[in-house]
Amino acid sequence: MKKIDDAECLIDISSSDDEDNNIVHKTKRKESSKPIFAASSFVPLQNPKESEISDDDEPPALSPSDFEPSCSTNNPQPQQAGSSSTLVASENTSVRSANALLENPEGRNHPTFYLRSRSAAINTAALKDDVYESLDYDVCDNVLFKEEQKRTDNARFNIKKDILRWIIFIQIGVVTALIACVIDIPIEELSAVKYTFLKDSVDNNVAVNLNPNGNLVIPYLYWILMSIIPVILGAALVTYVEPITAGSGMPQVKSYLNGVKIPRIVRIKTLAVKAVGVVTAVVGGLVGGKEGPMAHAGAVVAAGISQGKSTTFVKDFRVFRAFRDDHEKRDFVLGGAAAGVAAAFGSPIGGMLFSLEEAASFWNQNLIWRTLVASIISSFTLNIVLSAYHGLHNFTFTGLFNLGKFEQPLKFEYFELPIFMLFGVTGGLLGAMWNSYNTHINRFRARFVKFKFARIIEAALVAIIGVTLACIMIFFINDCRPLGNDPTDYPVQLFCEDNEYNAMAALWFQTPEATVRSLFHDPPGSHKILTLTVFTLVYFFLACITFGLNVSLGIFIPTGLVGAAWGRLVAMIIFYIFPEATFLNPGKYALIGAAANLGGVLRMTISLSVILMETTGAETSFFFPLIVTLISAKWVGDYFTEGIYDIQIKMSCVPVLPWELLPKYKGHKASQLMSSPVICIKKIDSAKYIYKILRRCKHNGFPVVEDVEGNNRENGRVCGIVLRSQLIVILLNALYEEKKRFWEKEISIETFRNVYPRYPSIDSVRLPNEKQNYTVNLEIFMNPSPVRVSECDSASKIFKKFRALGLRHMIVINRENRVVGIITRKDFLYK
Amino acid sequence: MKKIDDAECLIDISSSDDEDNNIVHKTKRKESSKPIFAASSFVPLQNPKESEISDDDEPPALSPSDFEPSCSTNNPQPQQAGSSSTLVASENTSVRSANALLENPEGRNHPTFYLRSRSAAINTAALKDDVYESLDYDVCDNVLFKEEQKRTDNARFNIKKDILRWIIFIQIGVVTALIACVIDIPIEELSAVKYTFLKDSVDNNVAVNLNPNGNLVIPYLYWILMSIIPVILGAALVTYVEPITAGSGMPQVKSYLNGVKIPRIVRIKTLAVKAVGVVTAVVGGLVGGKEGPMAHAGAVVAAGISQGKSTTFVKDFRVFRAFRDDHEKRDFVLGGAAAGVAAAFGSPIGGMLFSLEEAASFWNQNLIWRTLVASIISSFTLNIVLSAYHGLHNFTFTGLFNLGKFEQPLKFEYFELPIFMLFGVTGGLLGAMWNSYNTHINRFRARFVKFKFARIIEAALVAIIGVTLACIMIFFINDCRPLGNDPTDYPVQLFCEDNEYNAMAALWFQTPEATVRSLFHDPPGSHKILTLTVFTLVYFFLACITFGLNVSLGIFIPTGLVGAAWGRLVAMIIFYIFPEATFLNPGKYALIGAAANLGGVLRMTISLSVILMETTGAETSFFFPLIVTLISAKWVGDYFTEGIYDIQIKMSCVPVLPWELLPKYKGHKASQLMSSPVICIKKIDSAKYIYKILRRCKHNGFPVVEDVEGNNRENGRVCGIVLRSQLIVILLNALYEEKKRFWEKEISIETFRNVYPRYPSIDSVRLPNEKQNYTVNLEIFMNPSPVRVSECDSASKIFKKFRALGLRHMIVINRENRVVGIITRKDFLYK
Repeated sequence: MKKIDDAECLIDISSSDDEDNNIVHKTKRKESSKPIFAASSFVPLQNPKESEISDDDEPPALSPSDFEPSCSTNNPQPQQAGSSSTLVASENTSVRSANALLENPEGRNHPTFYLRSRSAAINTAALKDDVYESLDYDVCDNVLFKEEQKRTDNARFNIKKDILRWIIFIQIGVVTALIACVIDIPIEELSAVKYTFLKDSVDNNVAVNLNPNGNLVIPYLYWILMSIIPVILGAALVTYVEPITAGSGMPQVKSYLNGVKIPRIVRIKTLAVKAVGVVTAVVGGLVGGKEGPMAHAGAVVAAGISQGKSTTFVKDFRVFRAFRDDHEKRDFVLGGAAAGVAAAFGSPIGGMLFSLEEAASFWNQNLIWRTLVASIISSFTLNIVLSAYHGLHNFTFTGLFNLGKFEQPLKFEYFELPIFMLFGVTGGLLGAMWNSYNTHINRFRARFVKFKFARIIEAALVAIIGVTLACIMIFFINDCRPLGNDPTDYPVQLFCEDNEYNAMAALWFQTPEATVRSLFHDPPGSHKILTLTVFTLVYFFLACITFGLNVSLGIFIPTGLVGAAWGRLVAMIIFYIFPEATFLNPGKYALIGAAANLGGVLRMTISLSVILMETTGAETSFFFPLIVTLISAKWVGDYFTEGIYDIQIKMSCVPVLPWELLPKYKGHKASQLMSSPVICIKKIDSAKYIYKILRRCKHNGFPVVEDVEGNNRENGRVCGIVLRSQLIVILLNALYEEKKRFWEKEISIETFRNVYPRYPSIDSVRLPNEKQNYTVNLEIFMNPSPVRVSECDSASKIFKKFRALGLRHMIVINRENRVVGIITRKDFLYK
Repeated sequence: MKKIDDAECLIDISSSDDEDNNIVHKTKRKESSKPIFAASSFVPLQNPKESEISDDDEPPALSPSDFEPSCSTNNPQPQQAGSSSTLVASENTSVRSANALLENPEGRNHPTFYLRSRSAAINTAALKDDVYESLDYDVCDNVLFKEEQKRTDNARFNIKKDILRWIIFIQIGVVTALIACVIDIPIEELSAVKYTFLKDSVDNNVAVNLNPNGNLVIPYLYWILMSIIPVILGAALVTYVEPITAGSGMPQVKSYLNGVKIPRIVRIKTLAVKAVGVVTAVVGGLVGGKEGPMAHAGAVVAAGISQGKSTTFVKDFRVFRAFRDDHEKRDFVLGGAAAGVAAAFGSPIGGMLFSLEEAASFWNQNLIWRTLVASIISSFTLNIVLSAYHGLHNFTFTGLFNLGKFEQPLKFEYFELPIFMLFGVTGGLLGAMWNSYNTHINRFRARFVKFKFARIIEAALVAIIGVTLACIMIFFINDCRPLGNDPTDYPVQLFCEDNEYNAMAALWFQTPEATVRSLFHDPPGSHKILTLTVFTLVYFFLACITFGLNVSLGIFIPTGLVGAAWGRLVAMIIFYIFPEATFLNPGKYALIGAAANLGGVLRMTISLSVILMETTGAETSFFFPLIVTLISAKWVGDYFTEGIYDIQIKMSCVPVLPWELLPKYKGHKASQLMSSPVICIKKIDSAKYIYKILRRCKHNGFPVVEDVEGNNRENGRVCGIVLRSQLIVILLNALYEEKKRFWEKEISIETFRNVYPRYPSIDSVRLPNEKQNYTVNLEIFMNPSPVRVSECDSASKIFKKFRALGLRHMIVINRENRVVGIITRKDFLYK
């Protein structure tokens, strides 16, 4: 099991419409059809001759590509993408700037033309992350913002804003739950139709006791048909309509909460595709669950509702305008993800803790409180709707315990604790193995399954493999159990006697979630040891090849299922050997096994333990065994690999900040981490210069300086920071100092907020000659209090600051408060 | 109900041994017997003539008192304290420094002699907080620290440290649970003895059916005796041995987690007094619970264990030395408080959330995780010990559900939600009323009950009042219920028929906690309406006069009890009016009432809801009614007063940072908040100067500057910050630059760590004449990366930074990186 620390980037970012157009620049079509040179993850220093660029030269296709992500070194189909904003690796240009710096030291006076270097790290790792922007958790309190604050600084406005915020959180809870219902009910109904039909088909085609070999061909074909049709539908939707919806969505939500803006992650289209995708995939019988997608759905709902406008439907409801910034949006998304998890598991505290575990860098009591309320409302709404749907009239629909309530309190004995610990260790080992295999399969997949069509076929193939294996098992393993207190909804008689059912078919003829429920709650003696052994192995394999397909499916349920299966199995085996060991309640050990496996694969220990408690209604006293198991699993697993979500994030090259500074930077100083020299802007600078730097580089933050000697801007004294998006808005609205009398009255923070979150690209700006000499005064636009650190501050300290404050830029200054460098998220990861 | 925002300071800080000797300076005895001038909270500007102080003058009793807290303007007994470190208000000197600044502008060159002014706010509010220091959550990464890091920067050491940290958290969980047992079991046993005796006494003295007037005098006297003996014992302990243990301890723990060092709060002596105090108080029958004190106990345990030494027992175990700083200690205390709450309620998640709710300013996944584990281990250990104690052999001792498990799932109907909301509103109103009354009583108490002895008498009196009221109620209200499924352990027959018991006596003849359990779980029809009405009123009154006595008692149980009583009562009344309303399960409404009342008094919504869920084993679906109730209660309550803990904190003048910047500072800039001028130290400065400023002022952080013109230090360029404690250690160890060759080899961060947390006072330093001219080079001692903000940064932003990073000092610089001011915790509160 190799550590997957240096996982290559496998993300496919070839879709045509991008939320962040400003960072994905158009490149000439002829470039995009160039062959990819760098298949390895290291780009050789080549084409040094291209490094000299003259001052007046302004090649439009050149400088943007300086910061093109090289994630696409592994991008499977740059040729087919055919869209105007395809991301291609132009690695020969991507080293230019650095070369310019290395070979052309006299160029220091023209910072525009060699750009901020990513220092020695001229490999793709340092660049591949440029698809992703950071979110601005830091509020830009410029003069306009303060004016608005002053205008609205009265108790009434604040109360109104507070009430609005609560209303939004309540709405998030309700809508998320409704969407969970929209996902849940069709899955239930369609699965019922499917498995009833299949059961009937088996019953009809296999004449009992007459033909012991049976004729399973017809049901088998039906089964395949009923699997691949939804799977193909779902895979096609995901592949052609919204590729970001592939997988569980948890890694994306994690990244977002960590402060990385993932393109298209919180759009309504994404939500729609995800919902349909997960229904089709689960109904199609793929090995996966709806839980991860539900958390993602919650996040989208939150982002949508809180902004009060939809870009997909080009509709601005003109409400909640005050919440249109990254800071507020992220808080809402936090609540949405919590509500999603709460709805998925019927676990409000688990939902809140999930958010907490994944995004706890910056917290505040009110936010936790609102998140908890959103979670509770979400699970309550789900409860109402499902209760009503199932015709119950009070709120105790037990379906809320998604994995079934343990009716008897789970008791345990002192001597079982070591067993739980061993389960944990096993779970950790199996989890690490699974993560490693899955990663290898996905890497293989990314390399060889490149065509969109092939991906759909692949999904269908996996579905067929699943059905085939299931059929073979049902056919050959004749595990007959007496009917009566049968725990299955679709008892298939097959080759069994009358009044008996096939236990293997019972495991397969339902959704994976229902299978987990069976394993937890079926009475002892519901399965043969052989049945479960084969089932566990097959499921482990199927889960491994399923996660990574181009379908919307979560990993939680299959992982828990595998764990529950081997947990139950081990209990059965021990009981077989020591029949006097009555403490071996197979349901209890299934739960412990599920915890162990989940801990080994996901490593989300805090929320996981609470979710398992809440979703099975286990007693508080059973917390301890669960925690013992989870700790063991996590520690053992962490020794070998990271959690599957983190692996996926790494493979997507998302610059997610870890909890602690990476060990390799320990003992470093700010000056070793920072990028320099920095492109700065004078407080009063020319429109021409601003336009030029915006075209030439893709940086998002520019320190504003004063006290500049001549044009030596990069050594000015810091007085603020201004964002690319702000500069573009300034240019677009022609907010020149010379024309101040025309716009002075009308300008407000709303001007900037209106274009959030999809800021126009610099390409949409025209700067006619007559305006070239106008100047822009950044006084009222810039953020006057950027976070500054001294060049000799220690890396661990600035990292803590960066993380705790949720920053995007940190300006490094010298003793005299002059800019010496800038630190962004990526500097903590790829230096 | 008046808002209690400007609650005066009522804290009694007159004890003789203080953990933080360095901030509580000795004053001359004759000064301390001066009459107090300023009884109001505003100190008039008087004695301007005293403002000129000559350079060479060094009056030892004068300058320390410049920063003496004026909390003691309301200090009840400055005269009797008689200890050498009594805190007195010397308000005539406390304005000196400001006057010096105002009237003596040429004094600017001698910053030592007018000290950092607290600007215009020359009222006591600005000063009264000086008893309390901030904790240093920011790590001081000076050269010595970095050297240690480098020495130990290998995987092995880090793993070892990590494992150690885990071991400590596990120990915290175990020890906290054991202490909880030590509190719990005696309470149970002694109460059993007491109430059995009283029951027998009643039974013996009231001959059944013979003497309908009965002779309750003997049992009454016994009852009084058995109440006041433990109460007097407990009160005497608290009053004479460790006054800080009075009350629940929750406000103190909250303050500590907020980052304020409360003297003596985490000492072993405190723990011992608290434990004995709470046992005696509960056994004495005072209206209070053990839950708050248990959280406090957990915090003490954590602080003790993590430091590996006890100052009380003058024992240094020489382990865990790496954890000896405020940063690590606070993390452990967090876990300890969580473990304490978990043990108190059998609620591990509730415990974790309590810590989270109270200290969520700075978080990190690992910390949450460890906190949760400590909580779980704590409740598990408690479970084992109590199970063993009660002779059960598996881990399902239901005593872990401290308030009793609801055996039937609590169901509710749609139309009950408005009722829950109304309950919440009522709880909010009652809670606010209670808070207000209690505050008034405590203010009265602080003014008129000044003698220590009087306080003990007062506690005994309250105990007698309680017993008397109970006796009157038992005597006059003849609420007889049939024996059989009687929910009481001590059925008193009194004037009832055979096979009946007195329901009122059943409510009184047990601990308050057991009464809450009765109200939750007694079958419908266990009480008359009249019984409960009188009981509720009496209990409300008793709780009000009890909280604030000089005994160790929590507020959680009585508050919940009052709520449970009126909740049950309301359900009974409605049921009486509408007998067809079968949904009116009195136990359910008792729970809702308890939630409403707790929400109204405490306002700790998140953890409260989870604690109530966990401690009664309620179903997840019942979360929603609880939350609806709690939200209503909190919002209504917040409209009138703050939560009782926050009121107590305010009355103690503890400078606790709120979650958001105080509204009055909105729109302010750093320059308006900061204190200036600042006493700075040159990087290489004379020992004499350092000694002088340490004697003259009480500041804890001094910016280290360079690039100084002459002695004009306060305008130097910032290059670091050094703490008072560090300077004292430097002087004590004679770490002079001239003698470097003697100490260079031996010096390490351990030198500083060894004296943590009770740094010696400057009084212990001698600076003989021959050493006056030595210099100190702060290069390796100072923290080189203090947090700096620009003078025009907005207050809300710097507040966020201050809170998120858990800072103690923030240096305000100008454009040229020169010091212009300093901001500490108090500047955000009392400017």
